[in-house]
Amino acid sequence: MELLIDCIPCLLRQSLEAARIATDQKEIHNKIMKDTIKLLSDYDKYKNSPQLAKEIHNLVKNETGNPDPYQQIKNRDLQAAKNLYPFLKDFLQRKENSIYWALKVAAVGNNLDAAVYSNPELEKCISKELEKEFTICDLDLFTKKLQQAKNILIIGDNTGETIFDRVMLESFPDTAITYGVRGESIINDVTEKEAMDSGLNSVARVISTGCGSPGTILADCSPEFIDIYERSDVIISKGQGNFEALSGEKGNLFFLLKAKCLAIAGAFHVKINDYIFHYENAKY
Amino acid sequence: MELLIDCIPCLLRQSLEAARIATDQKEIHNKIMKDTIKLLSDYDKYKNSPQLAKEIHNLVKNETGNPDPYQQIKNRDLQAAKNLYPFLKDFLQRKENSIYWALKVAAVGNNLDAAVYSNPELEKCISKELEKEFTICDLDLFTKKLQQAKNILIIGDNTGETIFDRVMLESFPDTAITYGVRGESIINDVTEKEAMDSGLNSVARVISTGCGSPGTILADCSPEFIDIYERSDVIISKGQGNFEALSGEKGNLFFLLKAKCLAIAGAFHVKINDYIFHYENAKY
Repeated sequence: MELLIDCIPCLLRQSLEAARIATDQKEIHNKIMKDTIKLLSDYDKYKNSPQLAKEIHNLVKNETGNPDPYQQIKNRDLQAAKNLYPFLKDFLQRKENSIYWALKVAAVGNNLDAAVYSNPELEKCISKELEKEFTICDLDLFTKKLQQAKNILIIGDNTGETIFDRVMLESFPDTAITYGVRGESIINDVTEKEAMDSGLNSVARVISTGCGSPGTILADCSPEFIDIYERSDVIISKGQGNFEALSGEKGNLFFLLKAKCLAIAGAFHVKINDYIFHYENAKY
Repeated sequence: MELLIDCIPCLLRQSLEAARIATDQKEIHNKIMKDTIKLLSDYDKYKNSPQLAKEIHNLVKNETGNPDPYQQIKNRDLQAAKNLYPFLKDFLQRKENSIYWALKVAAVGNNLDAAVYSNPELEKCISKELEKEFTICDLDLFTKKLQQAKNILIIGDNTGETIFDRVMLESFPDTAITYGVRGESIINDVTEKEAMDSGLNSVARVISTGCGSPGTILADCSPEFIDIYERSDVIISKGQGNFEALSGEKGNLFFLLKAKCLAIAGAFHVKINDYIFHYENAKY
């Protein structure tokens, strides 16, 4: 998906947020703001939003000397998500259409951020999100493909969301599953470390995509990952960043996400906060 | 109030919003985005946010050839606010502490924007906002000053809000009232035209500040306005933009606003969406 003009102000806001997470020094915040503006002045040379986002977050890492500004946030979110694991398992056990609701659990994971985790009524809030139906859901096609699939690839998004993904994967039929993660620390996204800490290695082979953007840009991925990607009978791409990077690419791509901004909601013709499970039906 | 770093991404977002209101031509949106980024690269040369906002909106006006992009929005909002006039009068009549609630009516006016006006349950929604108490309210001091005041100056903010201001002013004691408005069209702010259309001339002398920023920067105001400002026994400054431009200036300044963003809420140590009526107690 091409870079939308709407992403530019949002990326500038994200840059300031990351700068403040990485350091308390105001002069560094100002330096990062200035340098991000300089970077944004060439926004039309970037193919998609994750590509530009990576440059911005690299700038934050370099100027603060902090290679993983979101580390503490990731630890906190992962712990909160781990505490929810029994609750999520119980939720899924009580549902009849297990594939649909397993996908829904993973989709709700994509909704979670720091603000939600700090909610004292967390389970209540998540219950409400879990019961919301998908606005777009290509379930029949997925079920059919899943039955025939010899292997599945999931491409992860945020840390913490990984626990929700694990619950989904534990309910899937006995198939070879690979879980792709970011090639380096970027925002609060899942890398090999957080995937292992989430116990994903008990249900899947965890592999780095080789790409360090907050969205899987195939041109930046390792040959090993590309090989797995191309051989996968079913690919579940989690979250907005992966959608922005992978939409339009070849592959058995199902996009599983919550539309969190107007730009993404607009791309699917849905409302903000709607849940989506969409097969892109790439021709090849 | 100095320009905060938080304002930069928000101003970039506003620029895109204004560009889209002014024209449907995507290449002009991109040109405006590029030129706004160029302008923002020098953000630290601006003393406050309204000064920079004016430059951005001038850029939008120049590049779209539209001198008043928000005209239709202003017309729509003013009509919606006019329809609320009897409801607001009735609300105030049923309240005992009339000065407090008159101020509250005017503060709620500051809250209104297009999203609120298009709410089908508008009166219900406004009722709820009206009943919310101020978080900061220097009422006693104001009542005392109002009793002694020979003249009052109100500095207006948005179109539509003007109807709420009129309801407030109609309940004030018999005093010479001046209503200051923007010197030129900027965003949805009130100029002489919209003040007249709001019937404010029936309760006040309407005068242009001479300043065309979305916040009254005294250095840009006309000598006539400065003379009135300096002689005013009580000045009520409406909204965030006027607060950003006038905070720290001399004058019998009471700031009446809703804190709509974290930067302003932080300046008052209140929460977002809190209502404020604050005397700045300038020493002179």
